[in-house]
Amino acid sequence: MNFRIESDSIGSRKVPKDAYYGVQALRASNNFNITGLNIHPEFVKSLAQVKKASAITNCSIGLLDSKIGNAIIQACNEIIEGKFREQFIIDPIQGGAGTSINMNANEVIANLAIEILGGEKGDYSIVSPNDHVNMGQSTNDVIPTSGKITALRLASKLLNQLSELHMALKGKSEEFKDIIKMGRTQLQDAVPITLGQEFRAYSAVAKRDILRIKKALQDMGVLNIGGTAVGTGINADEEYVESVVPNLSIITGMDLCQADDLIDSTQNLDAFSTISGAIKICAVNLSKISNDLRLMSSGPRTGIGEINLPAMQNGSSIMPGKINPVIPEVLNQIAFNIIGNDVTITMAVEAGQLELNAFEPVIFYNLFESMETLSNGIDTFTNNCILGITANRDRCRQLLENSVGMITVLAPYMGYKKSASIAKKALASGKRIKDIIVEEKVLNEEQFETFINPYDMIKPKHMRKKAKI
Amino acid sequence: MNFRIESDSIGSRKVPKDAYYGVQALRASNNFNITGLNIHPEFVKSLAQVKKASAITNCSIGLLDSKIGNAIIQACNEIIEGKFREQFIIDPIQGGAGTSINMNANEVIANLAIEILGGEKGDYSIVSPNDHVNMGQSTNDVIPTSGKITALRLASKLLNQLSELHMALKGKSEEFKDIIKMGRTQLQDAVPITLGQEFRAYSAVAKRDILRIKKALQDMGVLNIGGTAVGTGINADEEYVESVVPNLSIITGMDLCQADDLIDSTQNLDAFSTISGAIKICAVNLSKISNDLRLMSSGPRTGIGEINLPAMQNGSSIMPGKINPVIPEVLNQIAFNIIGNDVTITMAVEAGQLELNAFEPVIFYNLFESMETLSNGIDTFTNNCILGITANRDRCRQLLENSVGMITVLAPYMGYKKSASIAKKALASGKRIKDIIVEEKVLNEEQFETFINPYDMIKPKHMRKKAKI
Amino acid sequence: MNFRIESDSIGSRKVPKDAYYGVQALRASNNFNITGLNIHPEFVKSLAQVKKASAITNCSIGLLDSKIGNAIIQACNEIIEGKFREQFIIDPIQGGAGTSINMNANEVIANLAIEILGGEKGDYSIVSPNDHVNMGQSTNDVIPTSGKITALRLASKLLNQLSELHMALKGKSEEFKDIIKMGRTQLQDAVPITLGQEFRAYSAVAKRDILRIKKALQDMGVLNIGGTAVGTGINADEEYVESVVPNLSIITGMDLCQADDLIDSTQNLDAFSTISGAIKICAVNLSKISNDLRLMSSGPRTGIGEINLPAMQNGSSIMPGKINPVIPEVLNQIAFNIIGNDVTITMAVEAGQLELNAFEPVIFYNLFESMETLSNGIDTFTNNCILGITANRDRCRQLLENSVGMITVLAPYMGYKKSASIAKKALASGKRIKDIIVEEKVLNEEQFETFINPYDMIKPKHMRKKAKI
Amino acid sequence: MNFRIESDSIGSRKVPKDAYYGVQALRASNNFNITGLNIHPEFVKSLAQVKKASAITNCSIGLLDSKIGNAIIQACNEIIEGKFREQFIIDPIQGGAGTSINMNANEVIANLAIEILGGEKGDYSIVSPNDHVNMGQSTNDVIPTSGKITALRLASKLLNQLSELHMALKGKSEEFKDIIKMGRTQLQDAVPITLGQEFRAYSAVAKRDILRIKKALQDMGVLNIGGTAVGTGINADEEYVESVVPNLSIITGMDLCQADDLIDSTQNLDAFSTISGAIKICAVNLSKISNDLRLMSSGPRTGIGEINLPAMQNGSSIMPGKINPVIPEVLNQIAFNIIGNDVTITMAVEAGQLELNAFEPVIFYNLFESMETLSNGIDTFTNNCILGITANRDRCRQLLENSVGMITVLAPYMGYKKSASIAKKALASGKRIKDIIVEEKVLNEEQFETFINPYDMIKPKHMRKKAKI
Repeated sequence: MNFRIESDSIGSRKVPKDAYYGVQALRASNNFNITGLNIHPEFVKSLAQVKKASAITNCSIGLLDSKIGNAIIQACNEIIEGKFREQFIIDPIQGGAGTSINMNANEVIANLAIEILGGEKGDYSIVSPNDHVNMGQSTNDVIPTSGKITALRLASKLLNQLSELHMALKGKSEEFKDIIKMGRTQLQDAVPITLGQEFRAYSAVAKRDILRIKKALQDMGVLNIGGTAVGTGINADEEYVESVVPNLSIITGMDLCQADDLIDSTQNLDAFSTISGAIKICAVNLSKISNDLRLMSSGPRTGIGEINLPAMQNGSSIMPGKINPVIPEVLNQIAFNIIGNDVTITMAVEAGQLELNAFEPVIFYNLFESMETLSNGIDTFTNNCILGITANRDRCRQLLENSVGMITVLAPYMGYKKSASIAKKALASGKRIKDIIVEEKVLNEEQFETFINPYDMIKPKHMRKKAKI
Repeated sequence: MNFRIESDSIGSRKVPKDAYYGVQALRASNNFNITGLNIHPEFVKSLAQVKKASAITNCSIGLLDSKIGNAIIQACNEIIEGKFREQFIIDPIQGGAGTSINMNANEVIANLAIEILGGEKGDYSIVSPNDHVNMGQSTNDVIPTSGKITALRLASKLLNQLSELHMALKGKSEEFKDIIKMGRTQLQDAVPITLGQEFRAYSAVAKRDILRIKKALQDMGVLNIGGTAVGTGINADEEYVESVVPNLSIITGMDLCQADDLIDSTQNLDAFSTISGAIKICAVNLSKISNDLRLMSSGPRTGIGEINLPAMQNGSSIMPGKINPVIPEVLNQIAFNIIGNDVTITMAVEAGQLELNAFEPVIFYNLFESMETLSNGIDTFTNNCILGITANRDRCRQLLENSVGMITVLAPYMGYKKSASIAKKALASGKRIKDIIVEEKVLNEEQFETFINPYDMIKPKHMRKKAKI
Repeated sequence: MNFRIESDSIGSRKVPKDAYYGVQALRASNNFNITGLNIHPEFVKSLAQVKKASAITNCSIGLLDSKIGNAIIQACNEIIEGKFREQFIIDPIQGGAGTSINMNANEVIANLAIEILGGEKGDYSIVSPNDHVNMGQSTNDVIPTSGKITALRLASKLLNQLSELHMALKGKSEEFKDIIKMGRTQLQDAVPITLGQEFRAYSAVAKRDILRIKKALQDMGVLNIGGTAVGTGINADEEYVESVVPNLSIITGMDLCQADDLIDSTQNLDAFSTISGAIKICAVNLSKISNDLRLMSSGPRTGIGEINLPAMQNGSSIMPGKINPVIPEVLNQIAFNIIGNDVTITMAVEAGQLELNAFEPVIFYNLFESMETLSNGIDTFTNNCILGITANRDRCRQLLENSVGMITVLAPYMGYKKSASIAKKALASGKRIKDIIVEEKVLNEEQFETFINPYDMIKPKHMRKKAKI
Repeated sequence: MNFRIESDSIGSRKVPKDAYYGVQALRASNNFNITGLNIHPEFVKSLAQVKKASAITNCSIGLLDSKIGNAIIQACNEIIEGKFREQFIIDPIQGGAGTSINMNANEVIANLAIEILGGEKGDYSIVSPNDHVNMGQSTNDVIPTSGKITALRLASKLLNQLSELHMALKGKSEEFKDIIKMGRTQLQDAVPITLGQEFRAYSAVAKRDILRIKKALQDMGVLNIGGTAVGTGINADEEYVESVVPNLSIITGMDLCQADDLIDSTQNLDAFSTISGAIKICAVNLSKISNDLRLMSSGPRTGIGEINLPAMQNGSSIMPGKINPVIPEVLNQIAFNIIGNDVTITMAVEAGQLELNAFEPVIFYNLFESMETLSNGIDTFTNNCILGITANRDRCRQLLENSVGMITVLAPYMGYKKSASIAKKALASGKRIKDIIVEEKVLNEEQFETFINPYDMIKPKHMRKKAKI
């Protein structure tokens, strides 16, 4: 391989001649070989958007030579379009608050701009990664800003997936609205409910999660760009500080604003914990739904068997004909992973010291994974599971009719104690409660049918008119 | 001890004659001897408020005999006033979604009401715990409702403490506003800042936490009372379902409303995870501030020593004169505990099945502890630490002047690379950067003083006018 | 109230005249009003044991006057016997590595010893809390040492409970050894198993947990006493350092030793994380068993219903006759709580700095709670649940015979693909696999019975002799 | 692209003609597009080793035709050598206990074997993925077995890295053994220690972590292979069950054995939680060391500045000359991530149900990441940080001499109270304690030097001979 020599305060080093990254990225890449992965491509895009906004702003106030500025902007545009991702060589888990990935971007953009201006890669006298590309900026405002923009972009995908899930659940609640079945609390027979009501409840949770995530995202749009190293804005021009966020809003098409206190915003990363928390709760809610679906579809013969999940793949390498609830199971696992990620993010947010929280890289690594795996999980959940669920109407009805739980509806009329004694007799004898009630002449058969209509039990009703039994 | 005999579906059992609780509470108390503690007294109050609201509502719609109803209301009032706490004998960690504590309350209220009506404890033909006190209710709506009311009450105390902390931090930011010092990122010398700016940032976080907690509390006021066993409202009169929440709002003085979907609201406890998350983030932010205070007050002689925390107690049993930052340390520990509590709550929320999440008891146990320990921790933090902090102005200034970090302000004029080389020389030689800059004739002494005024470095300024060095 | 005046480096303060604690405990008690609870009584006992061992050692090497020493020993004995617990007034969550509780103990012991020697409480010229009671010690070795001794004592109770659980599960595995039923993987019908095999597996986990906890406890017996402030043993006599642990072993009856590197042992609390981890895993395993029991006992009519848990209390305030699996549910909650506690302990262990980890108090608070709640939970689990479990033999058999899963045993003879197609037909038609196999003339009825005997399927067998179908 | 048609119980599907994977892998790959990553390559190797051991065993007992068996073994060998990784197309987070990846392996091996036998890919009449490659196996024994083998292999790398770290720390402890400095507890000046003692303590922790991990690995070698679907060994020949583990030991070169209770071992994954816990504790210990290094190297001018970490890269894009402790910082982040991973693993282990824990995929995803990132982190920590640390001997000495903490050594002679009063005077006046002690005629200068020699304070000594001051 051919090389060029680059130097920094640490010393000199051979850089592959074709590389757009420079010596600083190279050092960092050697220092951090942790996950074997690269920084998230959407984060690279966000970083280029920030660099572009800064260049535009610095040009407009006359601090950055417009020829250099335009070359930088053009370089940023190429990265924003998705090119040169292979030039971003830093591990997502990296020491140093993101200086490595910021310098990686500064170097790639500088070298692209240098070529645009007719120079050769590495000739930073034409465009300097620090003095030009990073002008008026610090890792400490660029990186959290890029992280927030990335989170907003990933959240938008997630919210779309959640909306589709919400619609799918709502659709099922309509489809199943008259399928009466036994409700269960603590896995024990309780009182009647419809399958439609259950799915309506699921759709209600999904909707609440959408709202919760949207609320949590509000803080993602509050940026510390302009605060530079510690939030005081050192080395940033005061006009730049005022204009860079509006410019960034235009570039990203997002509704962004600047934090009231840039010092606070540089050292405190609680906004990331907030969004992580909202995502975690969404995952937890979906895990609970997944557990319910696995319970209700258990069987096919020796379980509850009230619903069927669509058969997506063979369930076993040894047991022929076995189909497993693999899609809900993957959602469970995504949830477990996200819950762990939230703990990691919490610890990293707590670990900030004085003017900076340097642990953004691990926060981003976990947050972006949480957002993407949840999006992807919901996608397969909606399309490969929810939409294809069918109900076993007869099984639902049969289980209900065989149950003892409907005795509850008589309790207001016979009292809890007497009702309990009838229930106990039914369970001990294996009989239906109807038979016992008729046998014991509590009600005759006709009265029983009037009182005990499961469809009457699925909503509140007028109670005072009814006589004491 | 004298006893009375009580019986339920399980069988008969001796209950202490003087006890207001009955056989069901007694069984539960024997089943659950887990933490050795009792249910939170504020929760008992909330439970009595719910029982009172239900009795008022059932009376007003004619379902509950007004004589019985009034006795129940009077009994509830006594509990609300704080009496009879010793009659609530159930461990906070209990199986069964809170049926045990609900029945404990039903029994105590029934027996109090029986006595009010001239009967003897245990004669449930006068007032029945299930049929009268629990009329139109289920554990599954009563308990989450009581939990939310309790959380709202505890949150109000917490928010007051946070406001006082916020004011104390703001006061300190004024007091310290002209104390210039070195800012540090990654524990390394960075650029100047004032101690006042640091405390202003702390006050900004505290304010954001207040807002975040308030937002999270919104869901605490959304109740499932009226949904009874599974959210369908079985055995609750439809008028009751409409009126019970307004009545409960009046009794508690809180702004409460009913969930749109009572089935969802019975089986999904994400609202508790939301408030736990907000409290956790607050604790994390305060832990970070505590860490900063411990760092800045480190020493007195071999650390940073920029501030002094008030001496609250001797720091050592062996080292005379040692004073430790015990108040921030206790806040750190409170934060660690709350972070663990949030994990517990997350797991419990995830574990709901079908029509119910039966794991409310452990959620309440952890949530209430988080809220109270944070309140208490902030109280001691504000009063025994923040308000008494003093600054070592000379030490701050001296460290700053001795530092190399001010070189940053020259970088826009000399370029990053040259600045870095001067910094390196200073560090290697032990000299001040001023001496090197003057020696190397970059600037003369006068120019240096003009350029390098730390008070100029703590906010953005106009940069374009300044010439290249 | 009457008071005496005590003073320390911070200043003077009124102490209740009757109090055995002194000014330092009083200050700490005011500084830390966090949980509202007191330090664990077993910890107080351990602390007194350490003080006694130190006094004995210091006497024996002639550093401590024997009159004073004997008074101290006598005072310790009274505390060890369980007296004076109300004199220990410090909150378990306290700042400062335990100096507060150590000084609380030093003061109580000093004042008791002073009275024994005929003096008046507060006259520390007779016996000094620091110079005599704390001689050769530091909070930083006394507190972790006392914590470990406490953990060992609590663990012994826990291990007993686990042994009883193990025996109970083993007993049930014998009782249920010939109850054949359907095994389920992923909640879907799999292949036959006996209920006895399932309980034998549960007993195997319990046994492994006992071993894992015992292994983890090994590090609990490795103490840093003798290291004093930072592990260098400053102010401890070298003979004391050698003799104090053997003396402590005698006093506690435990097999204790001294850490090889006392500096390491003072600053690193990983041993507590190790035991917390082992307890957490035990809790997780028991939570899984609890979930299984709740699944297998689900119903009684609309669930799996293979087993019955003993009815310990009414399950509902509204639903007559309902019995819930409250004992397994409480174990689930204990497990969730312990998992959260382990996160707290992890964070606290991570937060050590330089020569000390000052976050022991929150570690002990959580660890002791984990150990005790798990002990208590297992106690109720064994006695109020496991021992009373009964099996529904007919239901087990009936579900099995109706299932499709037994087709698996034919796969080696007909191939996976053909077996799968028969399974599919059975499920689609609702028929038994036997009928389809006979209909399709794969086997005649007699051959079927030979091949498909579920009791043959619950262990490996000779396969090669069997012909291809 | 060219395709072949494959079919399974779900239906027919086009598979790329060149693909060695088949229809089942393809379905799964479409169902699970979660992380965008592939299954760990070391896991694929382990899976091939298991398949090979099974084929060898089935051949040797005459169940598997030796021609087919040899082709399977040859196919496995190629995968073991590292080939065909691109044929393993399943996301690491997948539903279904690993059936997808097991079938992926079965298909790839079958198609390779088919080609070896002269057939065409997809012609499973020659070699069947289920009947031949998977003979006597189930996902439920193959996958946990492969996971454990993988963990053992990754652990071996980790243990090597830890040993090197241990040696490096030990080397530094020798190098720094006579550098005397101030010890700090709770970040406050305590008593003298040597830098060498500090590093010896670090090396002691590293050694303990090695032992703890080795202990935890013991359970990794206990396998459930032979238990097939639910641990009863259905469809596995009894000789196979006895011989497969010895064969696997030979193939892997590992010391493996079979679990006593295969049913337990199939449904309980606590062994993974055990190893995850040990790794977590190691990460926590290293995070604490990292925090210490960051504290001790803080500055260079306004912090503690006792040591220098090697400069590995520029520390800032804006602040020239700034060098940050990026290597310890990356280790902190790795630790945070591992702590989160452990929570995920804990939840997944808890979520097992009845005969199986189906959540192995997310356990492996997290466990392997923990192991690898920790290995990689230690590698960079040892080589890019620890080995290059230098000490600032003069700074250490100067801070020590200026401190007040050495007063502690006088306390046994003057009493705690008088010592504290001298310390207080020193701190208030800014004087050295020596000056005050001489001024107050407690000791003369000569006596002071005799008593207060910091090198005397770093180990226990004979105390009783010394007179009272």
